[in-house]
Formats: sequence, structure tokens, C-alpha cells
Amino acid sequence: MTTITARERLINAAVEAFSEKGFAATTTRDIASRAGMSPAAVYVHHDSKESLLYTVSLDGHRSALEIIQRAAAASTDPVDRIRTMVFDFSLWHADHSRVGRIVQWEYHALTPEHRAEVGAIRRSIERTMQDALADGVQQGVLDAEDVPGTAFSLLSLGVDLVRWFEPGGSRSGRELATLHAELAVRMTRRTA
Amino acid sequence: MTTITARERLINAAVEAFSEKGFAATTTRDIASRAGMSPAAVYVHHDSKESLLYTVSLDGHRSALEIIQRAAAASTDPVDRIRTMVFDFSLWHADHSRVGRIVQWEYHALTPEHRAEVGAIRRSIERTMQDALADGVQQGVLDAEDVPGTAFSLLSLGVDLVRWFEPGGSRSGRELATLHAELAVRMTRRTA
Repeated sequence: MTTITARERLINAAVEAFSEKGFAATTTRDIASRAGMSPAAVYVHHDSKESLLYTVSLDGHRSALEIIQRAAAASTDPVDRIRTMVFDFSLWHADHSRVGRIVQWEYHALTPEHRAEVGAIRRSIERTMQDALADGVQQGVLDAEDVPGTAFSLLSLGVDLVRWFEPGGSRSGRELATLHAELAVRMTRRTA
Repeated sequence: MTTITARERLINAAVEAFSEKGFAATTTRDIASRAGMSPAAVYVHHDSKESLLYTVSLDGHRSALEIIQRAAAASTDPVDRIRTMVFDFSLWHADHSRVGRIVQWEYHALTPEHRAEVGAIRRSIERTMQDALADGVQQGVLDAEDVPGTAFSLLSLGVDLVRWFEPGGSRSGRELATLHAELAVRMTRRTA
């Protein structure tokens, strides 16, 4: 039997409440009752509703960064690397679409300090993709006139999944990730 | 001097309030005060806060559909057509990022009937892109194994702009639309 800590129970309850009602309409009382706790007990772990959002956002961004850094390190061939990075990044967003939706849509509800911290992780994710593109261009295998813009567009394919993807729909996350990876190769492979 | 009707003033106030505070945290009183009206006056034009969201969403989706249908009709060359459709669709999303954000992020706040109506327009937008791809594939000029998935990915580039684009940033809407259009051509043009 897995033991779920009070902290994890709270995070799960926050994800559930934020994704159903949105951050603004969720009360601490609501999160507490979903976690089977008193509102006072919530404050033992988190000093505000925003601090729960921050935790969800930070965990989500750190996982996404780890996924893409690992994918970048998995291959030295520039085409394979782009394919793997886009596949893994898109699959992660399909597998975590509920958390992803909160993270993206409630970004403005973070305090300025927390937004700056999460924003730095976002920039690391973008930089990881930019480095992979720039390396492939330098090796003469990839083609991208606008490296930062192309990197952002490759990531957009995955990020946009959180807007609409639900598990059990007509396409699986793996099918979509495969499609995105093939489109990414078409977008970046040198043809001439 | 342009005369703004009470209805338009209300819609503008609703867009402002929803984009600042989110739909759930916005009150009818808040919209009324931004429009310089009494809450009672709001109900002369709209019977609920949801009905304002529905109007914003319906207008937004209808404009996006019109843009993409017009672009599809502007060229008979499959490559030019994809380039124009993606350019115009992305530029529209950059130019309307605030309305677009409300439309995308508050979609679940629409009543089921309104969501069905807006959903039908979304499917028309997707079908317009699918038809352009399928026609190009049939003419032997474009290449897409998965037409619906590729169509969706081409639209994603533009839709994802509303998540982060602000006018006056480091890139203009036209620059981003140009980038997306070139990536779209790379994604779909037959190379072999």
C-alpha cells in the first residue's frame, strides 16, 4: 500500500479543485474538504492558496525541464535528438494535461516572485531546444533561420495539447507525440 | 466621432474584466461599473454573465473562421494557400490575443448549448484547414499522412500565441505569422 502524505493529499486536492473551478473561484476551505482536512490544517503545510498553485506550477515545470534535458542527452544525431525531444515533451503534456492546464492558465495568478522563478525554468526549457537546433544547424544537418522562434514553435505543439487533450479520446498521447515528432523533423531537417 | 453602443461598451468591459480577473472571479456588478452602467442596465442587454462570455466567444470564433475561409479562397496553389491560411490565422491570434485567451481558457464556463454552438465553428475551422491539405495531397504537391492531425498542428501554432503574446513585445505579430507560415510550408510540402 502506498502511503500518501498530507502534503501530497493537499496537492492532489488543489489540482482537482483548480482544474474544476479555476484558481480564482477555489477557496482554501474547498481544497481542505477535498483533502479531508480542516482549513486550519492546510495552513500547517501552505500559507496560502497561491503557495499551493506555486508548488503545482514549480513541480510541473521542473518535470517538463527534466524530460526535455534527458531527451536532449539521449542522442547525438541532431535529427534523432529533435524527434526524441518533441516526442517526449508532447507525451508529457498529454500525460499531464490537467496539471499543464493549471500551470499555463493560472500563470498570472502567481506572485511576481514565484512567476519569476517559474519563468526562469521556462527559459531553460526553451534554451534546451534552442541549443539542440543550433547544434544541428552548425553540423549542417538541420535548417532554421530563426532558432528561438522555431524552438518555441516546436514546444508549442506539445504545450497546446493541454488546452484540449483528455485521456481516452480519439487519439492517444503516443499517437499525437509521434505526429508532432515527425512534423518537427520536417520543420527542421535540411533538405537542399 | 465613433458612437459606441451600450452593447459594445458592455462587451468591451466584459473582455477587460474577464481577461484581468478570469470569468469565475468577475461579477456582473464589476462589468457594469467598467461600462459605466448600473447592474440592472446590464440585464437589459444580457441575461447573465455567461451570455456576455458567449457573445465574446461566438464573435471571436466567427471572425477566426471568416479569416481562414477567406485565406483558403485567396489562392488555388496548395503551397501558397497553406502559407496564406497559417499566416492570416496566426496574425489574427496575435492581434486578438486578449479575446483569444478568454475564448480558449473560459471555454468550459459556457453552457453546454453554447459550447456545442461554438464547438461547431471550431470544427468548421479545422475542416477548412483539412480540406486545403487534402486538396494539396491529391494534387501531389503536399504530403500529409495524417491530415486531421497535421491540420490541427498548423492551427495550434496560431492558437498557442494567445497564451503569451502581448503587443509591443520583442517580436511583432507579423514576424511570428511569417515564421509560422514558413514552418507550415516545411511541414506539408512534398519533398521526395
